[in-house]
Amino acid sequence: MEEKEILELSEKSVELLSQRKFSEFRSILSQLVPADIALMMESVPEEWKFLFFRILPKETAAETFVYLDNDMQKSLIQAFSDSELRQMIDELYLDDAVDLIEEMPANVVKRILRNSSADMRKQINEILKYPKDSAGSIMTTEYVDLKRYMTVGQAFDRIRTTGVDKETVYTCYVTDANRILLGIVSVKDLLLANSDDVIGDIMESNNIISVNTLEDKESVANQFNKYDFLAIPVVDSDERLVGIVTFDDAMDVIQEETEEDFAKMAAITNAEGSYFKTPVFTHARRRIVWLLFLMLSATITGSILTSFEASIAAVPLLVSFIPMLMDTSGNCGSQASTLIIRGLALGEVRPRDVFRVIRKEVAVASLVGFALSVVNFIRILIMYGGNVNLSLVVSVTLFFTVIIAKVIGCTLPLLAKTVKLDPAMMASPMITTIVDCCAMLIYFAIANAFLPYLV
Amino acid sequence: MEEKEILELSEKSVELLSQRKFSEFRSILSQLVPADIALMMESVPEEWKFLFFRILPKETAAETFVYLDNDMQKSLIQAFSDSELRQMIDELYLDDAVDLIEEMPANVVKRILRNSSADMRKQINEILKYPKDSAGSIMTTEYVDLKRYMTVGQAFDRIRTTGVDKETVYTCYVTDANRILLGIVSVKDLLLANSDDVIGDIMESNNIISVNTLEDKESVANQFNKYDFLAIPVVDSDERLVGIVTFDDAMDVIQEETEEDFAKMAAITNAEGSYFKTPVFTHARRRIVWLLFLMLSATITGSILTSFEASIAAVPLLVSFIPMLMDTSGNCGSQASTLIIRGLALGEVRPRDVFRVIRKEVAVASLVGFALSVVNFIRILIMYGGNVNLSLVVSVTLFFTVIIAKVIGCTLPLLAKTVKLDPAMMASPMITTIVDCCAMLIYFAIANAFLPYLV
Repeated sequence: MEEKEILELSEKSVELLSQRKFSEFRSILSQLVPADIALMMESVPEEWKFLFFRILPKETAAETFVYLDNDMQKSLIQAFSDSELRQMIDELYLDDAVDLIEEMPANVVKRILRNSSADMRKQINEILKYPKDSAGSIMTTEYVDLKRYMTVGQAFDRIRTTGVDKETVYTCYVTDANRILLGIVSVKDLLLANSDDVIGDIMESNNIISVNTLEDKESVANQFNKYDFLAIPVVDSDERLVGIVTFDDAMDVIQEETEEDFAKMAAITNAEGSYFKTPVFTHARRRIVWLLFLMLSATITGSILTSFEASIAAVPLLVSFIPMLMDTSGNCGSQASTLIIRGLALGEVRPRDVFRVIRKEVAVASLVGFALSVVNFIRILIMYGGNVNLSLVVSVTLFFTVIIAKVIGCTLPLLAKTVKLDPAMMASPMITTIVDCCAMLIYFAIANAFLPYLV
Repeated sequence: MEEKEILELSEKSVELLSQRKFSEFRSILSQLVPADIALMMESVPEEWKFLFFRILPKETAAETFVYLDNDMQKSLIQAFSDSELRQMIDELYLDDAVDLIEEMPANVVKRILRNSSADMRKQINEILKYPKDSAGSIMTTEYVDLKRYMTVGQAFDRIRTTGVDKETVYTCYVTDANRILLGIVSVKDLLLANSDDVIGDIMESNNIISVNTLEDKESVANQFNKYDFLAIPVVDSDERLVGIVTFDDAMDVIQEETEEDFAKMAAITNAEGSYFKTPVFTHARRRIVWLLFLMLSATITGSILTSFEASIAAVPLLVSFIPMLMDTSGNCGSQASTLIIRGLALGEVRPRDVFRVIRKEVAVASLVGFALSVVNFIRILIMYGGNVNLSLVVSVTLFFTVIIAKVIGCTLPLLAKTVKLDPAMMASPMITTIVDCCAMLIYFAIANAFLPYLV
C-alpha cells in the first residue's frame, strides 16, 4: 500500500475515533493487513494511539502489535491492564513473544512473564536460555509433531486439533517416544496420500536436514537460501527435536546481517531503524566512532608524507599523484576485501583457503596493475610533455600498490575470521586507510631511489 | 553437508560408477538432497559427469539439474538426446524452465522449446514476453485455482488431482469465470474448516495483496519482507490472475540485488558466481572498468594540487594533512550515500524527500564535523608545537569538507534515482572520488587565504 493512502486512512480513522464511530472504524481496518495497520497507527497522533489500538479486534491487535516499533510496544504494554496484557500475549506466536521480551527493558519483561500462561512462560524461558545469535534463540517450539504409526487420516485430525496456534502446519515432524526426529512429512504429501496410509511409510526419513540448537543463526539462514525450505528442524546434541526455524525468521536474519555488513562497509556503527525516524543525534553518534578512529589513523599516512618533505621540495610535481595513488589502491583493496567478506558470509571461502586466495588475488592484481600502469604511463607522458622518468616512477609505484592493496584486502578479513572477529570490520574504510599508508611508503621509496633522474 | 563429506562421496561414487555398481551408487544418492547432489557432481571428474547424471533417477535428475551451474547445464543439454531432453524438461517446474531458457544461448533455447510440450511452450513464452526484472518474468503460472462455489471437500479433491505439479499448493486462489482474482484461501484454513463449507464463505477477500505483472521484481520481493507471504498473486492490468511469485524466488531476488549493491560499493562490475570458480581473467575484467574510470577521475584532484604548487612550496607541511582530509571526507560521503542507497532500496526514502534528507544530513554533519574538528585541532596543536594558525586552517577545512561530503553523498543517489539510473552507482568509490576533489579545493582555498599567517 502507498504511504499516501495510509496517511489518508490514518486521518480518516482519527476522525471516526473522535466521533466515536467505532464500528465504521473497525470496518475500514478489516480491509487491511496487520503490517499496514501498524504503519497507520504510527502516523496517528500520540493521544489517539491507545484508543486506536484498544478498538482493534483482539486477534488483529496482537498481529499488529508485532509490527510496531519497540518504543510503541513498550508504551502500549505500560498502558495495558494486566488482563489486557494477558489476552494479547495469549494471541502472540511464541517466537514473536520471545523477540518482544528480548527487546524490552527488565521491568516490562517481568510484567510480560507474570502475565503469560505457565506453559508459554516455560517455553519462552527455554528459548531464552540459548545463546544470542544461535539457532535456539530464533526457533519456535510451536510445530506439529506426528507419530510414525499414525494414519494419514489421524495426522489430519491432529493438524486440525493442534494446528490453529502453530506457526506453520505445512511441514510436520515425526518423532519417537524420546522426541528423536525420525522423519518429515509435508501436508502436500499427506494430501496426495490415501487416508489410511501410515505416516511411517510416506515420511521422508533419508534426506532430513536439521540444525543444532547452538548453530549460528546466519549459517541456519544460509541453509534456507540453499535448499528453499519452509522450515528447518532444530535438534539438541542428542538429536532430539526441540523446535523449528521458519523461513520468515530466516529472511529476517539475512536482512539483518546484510544491513550490518552494509553499515560496516560505510563505517557506520549500526544502521538499524529507518533513516528518517532515527534522530540526528543518534545518526551522528553512530557515524563518529569510526570517523574518529580512521581520521587519527590517516595521520600516520600524513607523517609519512612529512618525512619525505625533502623529495617533495625537490620535485613538487610528486604531490599531484598522491590522490590518484591513494584512491586507486583504496579501491583495489576494497574490491578484494568485499569479495572475501561476502565469500565468508555465504560460506564459499574459509580461513584455511588463505593461500589459495592470495595466489588468486596476486594473479588478478598483476593483470589489473599492468593494465592500469600502462594507461597511467601514457596519460602522464602526454600531460607532462614526455617526462618518461616521472611516468615510469608513478606507473611502477601504481603496479606495486595494486598488488599490495589486493593482498592486504584479501588477507585481513580472513585473519579477522581466524581470530573470531567479524570479517566485515575489515571492509573498505579500514582497508583504505591501511593501504593508503602502504601506497605512500612505496611511492616515496621508489621516488627517492630515482630522485636524481626526476629533478 | 560439509564440503569434505561431499568430496568423499564424489570419490566414492566415481569408484562405483567405474565398477558399474549402479544400484549401490543410486542407494548412496537416495540419501541426499538435490542441492548436495549438484555439489557432488561438480567435483566429479569431467569424463564421469554425464554417466553420473544419466544414472540418477529421472525426478532427482531434474531437481539436481536446477542447482547446476550454467556451463554444466549447457553441456548436459548438448549431450542429451531429444527424448532425454524432453523427459527432463517435463520434470522441471515452469519457473525453473524459464530461468534456464533465459540463461542459455539461442541454439540451446531452440532445442529446449522444440522439446517442450505444447502447453509448457505456451506458458514459457507467456512469461518470457514480460520485461526483464518485472514480476511477470519471475512468476510461475503453476498455481492451484479454485471457484467460490466449491466446497472444502471439492477443493481438496482439486488440490489432490492438480497439485502434484504445482510449486506450492498451500495458498490457493479463487477466481471467477473471467479469471478475476476474488479471494485467497490457505490449506490451513481449508484444514480447519468443515468439508461441506463453501469456499466463497471462508476465503479471504478483503485483504488481498497482489502485484501487477509489470511491477519491478525488487519491489515484489520487498512485499515478502514486509508481509511474510508464502506466495503473492500476480495480476494483469485488468485484475486477472496470471501467476504467482513464490517466496523462494523472492529470496533469490533479494540475494541478487544485495550482491549487486555490494559489488557496486566495491567498484566491481558484477560479482556473480563463486569467488574461486570465477577465472582470474574474469575477475580482472570485472574490476578494471571502474578502477580505470576512477583513476582517471582522480587526476582532476591531482591537477588541483598542482595548481597550488606555490602554496605547498611556501608551507610544505600542508601536504601532510592531505590523506587525513581525503580519507575523512571520503568516509563521510560514503556513510551518507550508503544510508540513502539502502533507504531507496527498502522504499523508506524517495527522490522527492531530497530536501528533508539534505536538512537532516546538514544537521548530522554539523555535529560530526564539529567533534572531528575539535579533536583534530588539539591533535595538530600537540604534534606541531602549538601552531595555532595551522591547526585552525586544517580544522576549519575539515568542518566544511564534512558538510560538503555529506550533502554530496546524500544528494547524488537521489539524483541518480530521479533520472532513472541505479542509485547504487553512486556508492562509496564514486562519491569518494568526487568529494576528494571538493575537499582539496576547499583546503587550498582556505590555506591560500590564510597563507601569510602560516609561513
